Amino acid sequence: MSFHGVFPYLVSPMRGDGSVDAAMLGRLCGHLIEAGVHGLTPLGSTGEFAYLDRAQRRRIVEVAVQAAAGRVPVVAGVAATTVAEAVAQARDWAAIGADGILAILEAYFPIAEDGVVGYFEAIARAAPDRTVVLYTNPQFQRSDLSLPAIVRLSRVKNIRFIKDAGTNTGRLLSILNAAEGRLGVFAASAHVPATVMLLGGAGWMAGPACVVPRQSVALYDACVARDWDRAMALQRPLWAMNQAFAKWNLAACIKGALRLQGFDCGAPLPPQAPLPDAGIAEVRAALVAVGAL
Amino acid sequence: MSFHGVFPYLVSPMRGDGSVDAAMLGRLCGHLIEAGVHGLTPLGSTGEFAYLDRAQRRRIVEVAVQAAAGRVPVVAGVAATTVAEAVAQARDWAAIGADGILAILEAYFPIAEDGVVGYFEAIARAAPDRTVVLYTNPQFQRSDLSLPAIVRLSRVKNIRFIKDAGTNTGRLLSILNAAEGRLGVFAASAHVPATVMLLGGAGWMAGPACVVPRQSVALYDACVARDWDRAMALQRPLWAMNQAFAKWNLAACIKGALRLQGFDCGAPLPPQAPLPDAGIAEVRAALVAVGAL
Amino acid sequence: MSFHGVFPYLVSPMRGDGSVDAAMLGRLCGHLIEAGVHGLTPLGSTGEFAYLDRAQRRRIVEVAVQAAAGRVPVVAGVAATTVAEAVAQARDWAAIGADGILAILEAYFPIAEDGVVGYFEAIARAAPDRTVVLYTNPQFQRSDLSLPAIVRLSRVKNIRFIKDAGTNTGRLLSILNAAEGRLGVFAASAHVPATVMLLGGAGWMAGPACVVPRQSVALYDACVARDWDRAMALQRPLWAMNQAFAKWNLAACIKGALRLQGFDCGAPLPPQAPLPDAGIAEVRAALVAVGAL
Amino acid sequence: MSFHGVFPYLVSPMRGDGSVDAAMLGRLCGHLIEAGVHGLTPLGSTGEFAYLDRAQRRRIVEVAVQAAAGRVPVVAGVAATTVAEAVAQARDWAAIGADGILAILEAYFPIAEDGVVGYFEAIARAAPDRTVVLYTNPQFQRSDLSLPAIVRLSRVKNIRFIKDAGTNTGRLLSILNAAEGRLGVFAASAHVPATVMLLGGAGWMAGPACVVPRQSVALYDACVARDWDRAMALQRPLWAMNQAFAKWNLAACIKGALRLQGFDCGAPLPPQAPLPDAGIAEVRAALVAVGAL
Repeated sequence: MSFHGVFPYLVSPMRGDGSVDAAMLGRLCGHLIEAGVHGLTPLGSTGEFAYLDRAQRRRIVEVAVQAAAGRVPVVAGVAATTVAEAVAQARDWAAIGADGILAILEAYFPIAEDGVVGYFEAIARAAPDRTVVLYTNPQFQRSDLSLPAIVRLSRVKNIRFIKDAGTNTGRLLSILNAAEGRLGVFAASAHVPATVMLLGGAGWMAGPACVVPRQSVALYDACVARDWDRAMALQRPLWAMNQAFAKWNLAACIKGALRLQGFDCGAPLPPQAPLPDAGIAEVRAALVAVGAL
Repeated sequence: MSFHGVFPYLVSPMRGDGSVDAAMLGRLCGHLIEAGVHGLTPLGSTGEFAYLDRAQRRRIVEVAVQAAAGRVPVVAGVAATTVAEAVAQARDWAAIGADGILAILEAYFPIAEDGVVGYFEAIARAAPDRTVVLYTNPQFQRSDLSLPAIVRLSRVKNIRFIKDAGTNTGRLLSILNAAEGRLGVFAASAHVPATVMLLGGAGWMAGPACVVPRQSVALYDACVARDWDRAMALQRPLWAMNQAFAKWNLAACIKGALRLQGFDCGAPLPPQAPLPDAGIAEVRAALVAVGAL
Repeated sequence: MSFHGVFPYLVSPMRGDGSVDAAMLGRLCGHLIEAGVHGLTPLGSTGEFAYLDRAQRRRIVEVAVQAAAGRVPVVAGVAATTVAEAVAQARDWAAIGADGILAILEAYFPIAEDGVVGYFEAIARAAPDRTVVLYTNPQFQRSDLSLPAIVRLSRVKNIRFIKDAGTNTGRLLSILNAAEGRLGVFAASAHVPATVMLLGGAGWMAGPACVVPRQSVALYDACVARDWDRAMALQRPLWAMNQAFAKWNLAACIKGALRLQGFDCGAPLPPQAPLPDAGIAEVRAALVAVGAL
Repeated sequence: MSFHGVFPYLVSPMRGDGSVDAAMLGRLCGHLIEAGVHGLTPLGSTGEFAYLDRAQRRRIVEVAVQAAAGRVPVVAGVAATTVAEAVAQARDWAAIGADGILAILEAYFPIAEDGVVGYFEAIARAAPDRTVVLYTNPQFQRSDLSLPAIVRLSRVKNIRFIKDAGTNTGRLLSILNAAEGRLGVFAASAHVPATVMLLGGAGWMAGPACVVPRQSVALYDACVARDWDRAMALQRPLWAMNQAFAKWNLAACIKGALRLQGFDCGAPLPPQAPLPDAGIAEVRAALVAVGAL
């Protein structure tokens, strides 16, 4: 399956008793696919992976795979502090039928570069017939993948993409230059997607795409058509919305926005707070401004 | 049980198959108690709590409680990103017989102060007849407890201590001043214990105390006797050792040092690296210099 | 005079006795103008403004203005910790004949937002018939201009541009959106110029343009022609060169590269070190790769 | 002259026209010496060195030296980005009669360790018969002096002290251990003075000592007498005052406090703001609490 285009980071709809709201998650997946998105990404930051235990994570991958039903690829997040736990998750998600693995390293103590590289290699070996997307996020993680580490990992056969969740857009061109075609790059919500597409990006993985799937696909299509003026005309209002969202806890914000659109996915798990009234008002205005409400 | 004095942060001895080496942990606990330490602290940073699943953590608390056999208090680490998981751990450790809870908040997204306070209050309610020690570590955690949050928490009946793992020693006097006697303060290995005792501290919780228990107790006794000249004479070489240790991954370093003393506790869990040869040589020299080898 | 296109940040050629090498600076300015650059920027970071006293800075502005001789605009850096010193420099540079002021706030203690805004307003008032370019650099300065502060300043008549020296390219679109046409944006060497031009940028101010003026102008022309495929073809090798430069002290690197091109501008002022041999080799290779040597 | 005890960091009293208020500075120096302080330190952070030009700095050193009249040593701040400027200041202050030099490195670009060491060595050579006090402040400066750099500098004959303005008190013991008696350590206002004296400190250099000179000297005397219980009884309220001060711009706060005590030293130089009303109220309460108003 080709990996390109708009991959919404799915929220994780949870009930008050800690169980996954599978019906709501399935409904959301179906809605996004009908809106034209090119893939689904459960268990990213927006999906609160850091707040879920293994059973909860497993259930979310199951539901997303079933809902996608082969129509679009599902790239499921693997996140752990130990190699052993990461390998177990990767095997499990592959067995469930995920098409790709979004590989995330959580750390408490700093890890030397060989350890970092070994962690991602172990995930790739654990799911040898799945595409691995490296994930790097300098803001919420203890360490950023260095360029030399990325180049080493780009030589692993099934590591084929990187999702960079930083704000340094120039670094994406550095990665593309350094990996010499062996790695595709997905943008995050902290980058302007049109600029990343100009640099040669494959698409973007982002929480806000959950609430503006059609608008995101239109922007992607303009970029692929290399109609950059149209792309920028679509990009400007989407970026304004993105900025409005960036003030709030990511999961709380997307869950709050989805509720306004008729998808009640519950609140983020405590001690995270739900979106406050001021946030709801701001998110509502942002959605209206882009025609998503 | 009175909480004061030297509480070594226990390493977590693990076998290659991921199981806890209960025999070795029990032997280490016995050795430390015979050396005079005043308490045991499993599942601190040194204990690699961030790398262990619930079953592994549970086993470690069980073994420490059995080994202590009521001779000294056991303060077991509770660490989670969600309130639900923290409450479950706290209930479990209390049921096993831990005398106190070291309460640690892990975070991925920033948490608002009310959420932070609510998290620690929930732990205190979950183990109402156990003493709770707040843990704050600006270096390895996303957020530091603010002084106003500490004051709010000091009013909870069974929250009676705080362990500050930062390097800002003046902050400890600020906490003591602000909590007006309601919170005792334990130092961490990043503070000079003698200075914290001068400020009115209750003792220290630190990984290096695993390998210099007798020397640590002698220093504590000098401080309690207010013989500050003797305290500083004992403190200087211990601090030099502490500095030598601080260059390395904490768990790797203490496990490496314990192996030199005859306690083979295995390696830290991958992708953490074991202590390299240069580290072994430096740690050996540091132990010899303080008479611990 | 219109402000747009490629503005090289000039190095400050200094003799060993601390005097400005006016002949060399004049020759460099002439060379760059003949190569097609659209403006000159003395006393930016590359120009070591932070290492020069008022008399040295004054001399550099004089020489640049004389060398430009009205062919391209000269935007001279004003940098100070106090309003009084900034105002004196701005008046002085305007009297000498600089066409614009690059306004830089140096800080030791954090400054409240009203103080920051007042500082830039005072510069604008001190040179009322000159165009002011705000400068913000989160990497080397204590504070970044906030978006609300930028919007306030965009309402000052002769504040017409901002040069953002951070790496967060998305922020440039946020600034353009927020200032609603009242501020043009210049990119820095930490941004990929083609992406900033796509977002609607006015051009770029950058030290490396000193050594690749023709290549930079060709890239600018492709962007203005909206021939984005050609732009990216020109951009990729220039970015690789930029990355090679980014490893080294900026002034040392550009001075070292210029020496290879026949412009001996001396060493950066001590305690800055000149470009080491490894740097010279790397810079030479980078220049050869883009046809600049 | 022996360097030990309480050295207030002097504020720089300025008139609205930018001239030094020599009469007020002289009166303040006399008042402090009569209160028993052991030295005077013009042109530290509190003295706004970063906001003053050479002529203003020169005048302040002159007035302080005249006012001290040999009764206590004057340690004057030398602060620059270049070796040349630092050397010129050091020679000038020595010629005026300063007893010591507080050596401060300002930086814009990061400086390699050899450059840092060379900078301080050049100052020491420029004032060979004056005592040099190294200054390091991780909070307001781009770089902190590393322990190896400090050890190298401790071997220079007239570099005899270090003033560490960080918050990491344990680092002071590391410095004392590493310099093996060749360097004395002065604490800053971010450390609890009693703890630094316990570690073997020589005294402290701090802005707040301007407003509590007698209380500071009493604390120093208790430490020297090794009466640590009395020292802590004096220390606790002084630390509470120190904390109240730490919320505000340092120069604004000390100038505001001095005005309440009858020393009108003007406002800090714009764009710094004067102490706001809330700050005046808090500072007044803090002074009353320690008997300084």
